[in-house]
Amino acid sequence: MSKECLSEETINLHRAFRGKIEVSSKVPINTGTDLSLVYTPGVADICKAIADNPDEADELTSKGNMVAIVTDGTAVLGLGDIGPKAALPVMEGKSLLFKKFAGIDAFPLCLDTQNTEEIISTIKALAPTFSGVNLEDISAPRCFEIEERLKEELDIPVFHDDQHGTAIVVLAALINALQIVNKTKQQTKVVINGAGAAGIAIADLLLYAGFTNVTLVSLEGIVRKGAPWMNARQASMAEKTNLNGVHGGLNEVIEGADIFIGVSAPGVLSKEQVKMMKSDAIIFALANPIPEIYPEDALEAGAVVVGTGRSDYPNQINNLLAFPGIFKGALDHRVRDITMDMKVAAAEGIAKVVSNEELCPEYVIPSALNQTVALAVADAVGQTISEKEVCVV
Amino acid sequence: MSKECLSEETINLHRAFRGKIEVSSKVPINTGTDLSLVYTPGVADICKAIADNPDEADELTSKGNMVAIVTDGTAVLGLGDIGPKAALPVMEGKSLLFKKFAGIDAFPLCLDTQNTEEIISTIKALAPTFSGVNLEDISAPRCFEIEERLKEELDIPVFHDDQHGTAIVVLAALINALQIVNKTKQQTKVVINGAGAAGIAIADLLLYAGFTNVTLVSLEGIVRKGAPWMNARQASMAEKTNLNGVHGGLNEVIEGADIFIGVSAPGVLSKEQVKMMKSDAIIFALANPIPEIYPEDALEAGAVVVGTGRSDYPNQINNLLAFPGIFKGALDHRVRDITMDMKVAAAEGIAKVVSNEELCPEYVIPSALNQTVALAVADAVGQTISEKEVCVV
Repeated sequence: MSKECLSEETINLHRAFRGKIEVSSKVPINTGTDLSLVYTPGVADICKAIADNPDEADELTSKGNMVAIVTDGTAVLGLGDIGPKAALPVMEGKSLLFKKFAGIDAFPLCLDTQNTEEIISTIKALAPTFSGVNLEDISAPRCFEIEERLKEELDIPVFHDDQHGTAIVVLAALINALQIVNKTKQQTKVVINGAGAAGIAIADLLLYAGFTNVTLVSLEGIVRKGAPWMNARQASMAEKTNLNGVHGGLNEVIEGADIFIGVSAPGVLSKEQVKMMKSDAIIFALANPIPEIYPEDALEAGAVVVGTGRSDYPNQINNLLAFPGIFKGALDHRVRDITMDMKVAAAEGIAKVVSNEELCPEYVIPSALNQTVALAVADAVGQTISEKEVCVV
Repeated sequence: MSKECLSEETINLHRAFRGKIEVSSKVPINTGTDLSLVYTPGVADICKAIADNPDEADELTSKGNMVAIVTDGTAVLGLGDIGPKAALPVMEGKSLLFKKFAGIDAFPLCLDTQNTEEIISTIKALAPTFSGVNLEDISAPRCFEIEERLKEELDIPVFHDDQHGTAIVVLAALINALQIVNKTKQQTKVVINGAGAAGIAIADLLLYAGFTNVTLVSLEGIVRKGAPWMNARQASMAEKTNLNGVHGGLNEVIEGADIFIGVSAPGVLSKEQVKMMKSDAIIFALANPIPEIYPEDALEAGAVVVGTGRSDYPNQINNLLAFPGIFKGALDHRVRDITMDMKVAAAEGIAKVVSNEELCPEYVIPSALNQTVALAVADAVGQTISEKEVCVV
């Protein structure tokens, strides 16, 4: 479908249906008796049961399967700070994906504030209705504090998908790609171009998963101890990345790198730079829709495994592979928090969906539409939980 | 069904379905193309259209048909302050009624704060996702300030159903009951027993609708100028009710009253007191499940029209007759506020559903399950709007 046709069709679709989600009934309500069961007077018994034991809310209300998708509309797709109303179509779309891929009810809440404290207090006030919070499209560095504080202060899982969803899927793809090039996590030098929310989360997760040599590069230069332009999160990453303290930019670190991960801007990786990398280079160029380098160019320059954020090239790195299953695992086991171990397990779960027989340079990661992935991820997350008993008693 | 059977069946039902509402898709999402229309990349065009013109959110997202049902769980049914989680079953039930009777999507939000300012700021932050706010089961007097402030500060309608829903349905029933006893609003003396949120809202609406002689009675006594125990709202009502400045309690005002409206406590109106009222007395005894006086006793003592909050007696005064249609009218016409004129029009719309041929002492108000009422109310509300042009341009 051409871009113009897509645009017209998507506008027509949204206008015809007046958006994409509805709040509907799971129970029959046809007779007066039905009403007396779901509403007064019968409902009073449900209220009393929950007042006596608040944990019963997970079983007797929709709370147990309900996730809030919360944004302030400041970092929506590639569009930036377009405001809460304009962010709603994306959050509604995400709600559909939660339902389709994991059977989870997810309700979009687009907040009319960009104040960190107000966002935190609003989400805390809303918590009784939900069993999980998916933060979405909130700009850095506020997204870090909002997520950290909510993780500390709430007893339901909070997950900023732009950070951790991306990191999980990148790790999944790397696990399989390393098999193809026959390298190990410990041996490889990883360069992450882009030191915003996603780049930092990827670096964090790769280090936790066993990668040792990771360097972050931002527009201002390489993240390194003492660089004056860094925010608090970048400064903290400088402690555990770029171990040789390299100064400069992408050119200074790409030499000899095994893996390039781009979460930055269109066209910033040249064929010459790919040629400077080690043999059997792995390149995930995730800027969307125009990647840091087009796959055909990367392959021509010698890369072996190439992925992008696009559905029209092989190896699409898509958050959709992670968040439905992560939340399904978390809700099924009523966890209080989504831990680093769960994220690694989720990545391994995604990676395993590609069988050894299927694995090849053009297929290191399952299709975003593969409906078996969410269950595999939920299972993998569940394994972690039963081992470590972090579930709510 | 016996009370025990009802209780067991309602618990089983809620447990089997894990609550009553779900968030589901209005649009098909089966293929990759479907996904590209409802999510990336297609959705970006919807975002841009709304960023260019925020009013488009009403047409291109679910916002235009979405109402928030917000409570803090402090005044739930007759159960009182049971907290936000225990309030959720009632709010979910209400969501089902919004959908069934008016086709409106309504999402329950049970807040983990009882602080007036926090409730106000939370709801304000949430506003971009919704086109209306139904406040529910928030205790007095906080409910007054919360509603007033939100009405001032938001550009979407805010409606505290415990106040205004009840008031509208009482007015509707009175309009028809007065026809039966052949009295006029101006002639009648109205006693409202109960000076909380509902009692005050009823008094306000009756006065606005043309009743002139209204007296409020609370547990502390008759609301009157200078009474030391009154809250701010009661003090304001003292300026326009109890015009003769009567001191005392129910006994002191029931003499010669034409209409008794009880929003108070079980059994507080005696047969002797009914006998003290004028001939052709109208009695709406709305304490639930045990009314201020049972209908058989009221009729025996000489009352002509009797209503209660119960479905097993004639003339059930049920909010369900008002809120779906009120919100449908408000959303259909995108009003910024639900005005007194709209409330009176809604009452008249409800009253008219009972035809002159059907009207009799046992049928002054339609059945709560009558599905034609919501549309009649929405139409009546709509008439007010097109006359006075209060809609958002």
